[in-house]
Parts: sequence; structure tokens; C-alpha cells
Amino acid sequence: LPLAYTPGVAQVCRAIADDPALAEAYTGRARTVAVVSDGTAVLGLGNIGPLAALPVMEGKALLFQRFGQLNAVPICLATTDVTELVDTIARLAPSFGGINLEDISAPRCFDIEEQLQDRLDIPVFHDDQHGTAVVVLAAAINAAKVIRKIPARMRVVISGAGAAGIAVARILIRAGFGDVVVCDSQGVLHPNRADLVGGSAPHKAAIAAASNPRGIGGSLTDALAGAQLLIGLSGGTISEAALGGLADDAIIFALANPHPEVHPDLAHRYAAVVATGRSDFPNQINNVLAFPGIFKGALEVGARRISEQMKLAAAQAISALVEHPTADHFVPSVFDPRVVPAVATMVSAVARTEGLARS
Amino acid sequence: LPLAYTPGVAQVCRAIADDPALAEAYTGRARTVAVVSDGTAVLGLGNIGPLAALPVMEGKALLFQRFGQLNAVPICLATTDVTELVDTIARLAPSFGGINLEDISAPRCFDIEEQLQDRLDIPVFHDDQHGTAVVVLAAAINAAKVIRKIPARMRVVISGAGAAGIAVARILIRAGFGDVVVCDSQGVLHPNRADLVGGSAPHKAAIAAASNPRGIGGSLTDALAGAQLLIGLSGGTISEAALGGLADDAIIFALANPHPEVHPDLAHRYAAVVATGRSDFPNQINNVLAFPGIFKGALEVGARRISEQMKLAAAQAISALVEHPTADHFVPSVFDPRVVPAVATMVSAVARTEGLARS
Repeated sequence: LPLAYTPGVAQVCRAIADDPALAEAYTGRARTVAVVSDGTAVLGLGNIGPLAALPVMEGKALLFQRFGQLNAVPICLATTDVTELVDTIARLAPSFGGINLEDISAPRCFDIEEQLQDRLDIPVFHDDQHGTAVVVLAAAINAAKVIRKIPARMRVVISGAGAAGIAVARILIRAGFGDVVVCDSQGVLHPNRADLVGGSAPHKAAIAAASNPRGIGGSLTDALAGAQLLIGLSGGTISEAALGGLADDAIIFALANPHPEVHPDLAHRYAAVVATGRSDFPNQINNVLAFPGIFKGALEVGARRISEQMKLAAAQAISALVEHPTADHFVPSVFDPRVVPAVATMVSAVARTEGLARS
Repeated sequence: LPLAYTPGVAQVCRAIADDPALAEAYTGRARTVAVVSDGTAVLGLGNIGPLAALPVMEGKALLFQRFGQLNAVPICLATTDVTELVDTIARLAPSFGGINLEDISAPRCFDIEEQLQDRLDIPVFHDDQHGTAVVVLAAAINAAKVIRKIPARMRVVISGAGAAGIAVARILIRAGFGDVVVCDSQGVLHPNRADLVGGSAPHKAAIAAASNPRGIGGSLTDALAGAQLLIGLSGGTISEAALGGLADDAIIFALANPHPEVHPDLAHRYAAVVATGRSDFPNQINNVLAFPGIFKGALEVGARRISEQMKLAAAQAISALVEHPTADHFVPSVFDPRVVPAVATMVSAVARTEGLARS
């Protein structure tokens, strides 16, 4: 007791008061992640509130611990106001080495993450955006190899323009996929689309401007004509008529969970390569491939944030673990013990190169 | 994975969304305590800030786990504003079954606890006040038996009118100690003392009005003349001249840590019964005798708050564990395995009797 608590602990406190950097070595902070939600966009269930969201955050914390060997604390907050959420989470920062945002509805999630990362010098990472983006990119890189296409020359269609759809579009474009088109329930995102002019949907307008290089309009069916890669991130179903327009040897990622936009059995009729978010089909695209290693790598070097380069490097580390991608196996298993160390090593290395590491 | 996370977890979320009371059984919330501080009054170190306070909250969390078999999460907050603290902690409530406030400076701690308990239907417990009060009461009950005095007829002097001093005075009066006098650095608290008139120190004024039945004034030395029990909760030293005025067969609790107001060797010259807060002397008065069992008992029945009767019952449970109190042994050991179950059982029973239990 004198060691674990008073009077011994006073020496540790005094040392940290004199040199705050010692908190990294003398407390669990640098190995502890807050898994934070307001319960507004939980799985496919929507806005079910913070208490009902708690089981998801508990499960996520378990995955952080099991896969990333990190402490993780489920924190569900009783407010949905953006400013209150940002203030509250920012005040929690002395206890945590990183903040994993989870199941916060779009477009609020974009502002919350951005404002928090501006205020804090620890990683703030909205997993629904970036975890998904990293794993989809890793899968897309390998799926392109299976169909022998060069990403720069591929046509990609993303169905869904929520947090995940927009983040996936951003990372694919940054990674060199040359023709990315994003669709929401109203059809193709185009800068001139009536509802995207005027600033009421800035994140959709921004990705509309950054994507769609051929400047097409129309519906999802129009967008899919001749496309090599369809990424479903919407939760709705996609008609067989629309799928019929896909190019030969196409790829379908149907990622809605538990009900994919296209059932894998059906998807195989229209595509050579198929992946889902489900564990009971091959090639599971699951965020657990990304977030444990990303946080582990970032926290191990005391990274101030998780940069775009760190996310790209994480995706490359995941895809590189499948040496010879085939239609049956192009995504590593979530239980492959090489995944987390490979991702963490790459993320740490990039953080150091970019000058974002404290140690 | 399908069980611990998606899709299995969705069923749990849906069930809680339909019936919030199920969160008690389906999540860890009801067994998880937040150990919250703003770092303004840490041990004897003062306002060292939230980061430097973290080791104390980690140690406290360890004690909750080791002694109370409860999950506990150290939370140090980057604000010292009362309203911001209350708002922030209130928003954390969906994740926790109870809030243990720690090392928050007086008089802010009184308002923060009161406002939070008004807003939340889970226990909010400032351990520096109430944990200390419960253990001191338990020790005082048994020490009175050792010197064969009836509490109602004893003169008690508390040196220190901070969070602990005021809480100890309150509980002793409520428990039937008939003559309690509280002193701060300016001497005896009396309702007519110049600095207590006018409302600038409402908590000191309130305890001045509720204590000091003989209406004495003057210094600590004046107060100690003829006193049977001196309780040091100030951190300052107390002169031998002052101690010389104690009654025959007096009791000294010198609880400042790690440097008691009166060293035990010296205290024995002026008192028949001596206790300190230190583990290297007999009769350690340590909050760990109280808070693990109090929270365990409260959380086991889903208590909405921790009432005055629950605190009194906890103190009685602790004191009853020493059947035949002697000067050498009147406080149970913190490692006595009967302590936590005895306290928890009493606290649960009182919560049920008072209608404060949910289960």
C-alpha cells in the first residue's frame, strides 16, 4: 500500500508535475485509448443513445486489448451537441494516449474529429471513417492485382456517402485510384448537383469536387456502367440490373453488416472477386485489421496525430501480408498474428519520418 | 468475433434501447466506478494539475479493484471550472455505475458533489470527505470504548476545516458525539467569527453553527483544554503546549500523511490512545477501509446515491469488526478480509430500507 498509494505515489506525482513528459513512462496514459461515442450512429441501428451504445464500445475495447495489447476504456457521453462533445472529450485528454471516436453520426463526426485534433496533441481517430478506409484500401490494392488492373486506370464506384463512404473515397484517391465516383441515395455526387451547391452539405460537396473525374451524373446504375470496383457502404440493396453494368472481371465489396448490399452468392454472378464485412464468408474486410495496429504504432512512439501517410502505410502493410492475392484469398485473416505488428511497425516508422513522434 | 462484436452485439444494444434497465445486467456499467479528479488538491501536494494527479487516480483504481472487486477508471480532467467539471462528469454517467471524486480542492468540492448528485441517479461520493469521515467515525466509536467514555459526553476537537475536517465534524455530530469543536488556521469556528459572517465561507459557517455547543472562541490551544479526542486533519504541526491541555486518558488521531500533526511517539506522552494514517504504526485510519465496501454495497443493489444512513452504517460495520477494542488495536487491518463484505452488506441493506436501491 505505501508503494501503490500514499505516501509512495506522491513522489511519482511530484516528478510528473516537474516534467510532464514523464507521464508517458510513469502512468498507463500512453498505453490507454478512450473509445468514445455519443450513440448517434450505432452499427446499423442508428441513434439509440449512449447507454444502448455501451455494449459496442465494450466490444471495441476488448478488441483493442486482445489485438493491440492496449488498455481501452468505453466512454459513452450523454450529449449530442458538437461543441459539448468536443469540450468534454478534450477535457478527458490527460487520462488517455489516444481517442478512438466511434458510431458518431455524419456530418457531425467530421467536425468533431477535426476540432478535437486541432485542440489535442494525441491521436484522434474516427474509426468508422479511417479504420474502414484503411482496410478497404488494403483490400482494393490486392483485389486489383487479382484482376490485373492498375489502380490509376480503374473505375471505382462507392455506394454510400456517409462517414465511411467519404473517407474511403478520400483514401482511394490519395492512394492513386484514378476514377472514383461516389453515390448517395440521390445518385452520383457531382459538384453541380442542386443539393450540393450552396454549402449545406460541405463534406459531400468537397468529395464531389475531388472525385468523379469524368464529370458524370445520373444514378448508381449509370455510375456502375463499365466500373471495375463497386464498394457498398450504404446498407441499402443494389439491384441486379445495376450490377449487370459492371465490367468483366469486376470486384464487389459489399460491406454493410450484417446484411451486405449484395449477397455474396449473387455478387459472384456479376464479379470475379467478392468481399464482405462478414466473418462467415472469405475475404472479410474488418476494421480490426487496422485500428489495433494503427493505435499501437502511434502510441508506441507518442505520435501527436495519425496522418494521411500513416493511414496509407497501414493499408500497404495489410495488403503486403498476402503475397500472392487470389480471388479466394486477398485479405489477411483478422487472426493472422502478423497483422498488428506489421501495421504498428509501419505506422511508427512513418510517424518518426514525419516528425510526429515524441519518442 | 461475431459474438463479442458485430453482428452479435447489435442484439444487446437493441435490448438496452428498448429497456435501459437491462444495461445493468448486459454491460459492465453497474460494476464500474469513475475515479475523477481535476488535480487541484492532490495528497499534500496541492494544485499540481490533472496529468500529475493521474498516478493517484491509478493507485485508487487499483484499490477499488483489489479490495472491492470493482472496475475503476482513472479520469483526470483538464479544467478547474466548477460548471465545466459538473457538466463533463455528468456527461460521463452513461458509462459508469458510480462516481468517486478525489483530490478536488475545498470549497469547490462541496458544490461539485452536490450539483452532480442532484443531476445523476448514480452514487457520487467525494472520498476525501466521506471516506475519511466514515473511517474516522469507526475509529472514534472504538477509541471511546477504550477510554470508557460515552460519545454524547465527549469533547472532540478537529484541527482542520477543509473537505475532510468538515465532513468528519458532520458525521460525528450526526452519530451522536455531543461536543464537537472545529478549528482552522484562525482558531475555533464560531458563527460570530468575523470572517464567517457575510456568506463568503458558507460551508465553514454552516459547520460553525452546527458544532461548538458551548460557544467557545479562541485558538486550537483553547479548544483542546479538557478535550478527550483530538483529530488532526490539517497537515500542520500541533504544539506540545496545546497537547498539554488534553484531558487524562485522551485520544489523538493524527491523520496528516506522510507527516502526522503529532508524531505517534510524542502523541503517546499526551494521550492513552493514538492512531495515524500511516501503515507503519498501529491503528491505521485509512480510507481503504471504507470506499471499496461502500461502493460495492451501493452498486450491488443499484443504489441511486450514498445516503447519510449508509455512511453511518458503514462506520458501524467497520467498528464492529474489532470486538474488544484496546489501545493497541481498535481499528481493523485494511487487509482484514471481513471488512469489505461487512461494509458492503450493511450499505446494501440500508439502501434497500431507504428505498434507494434499484435491485
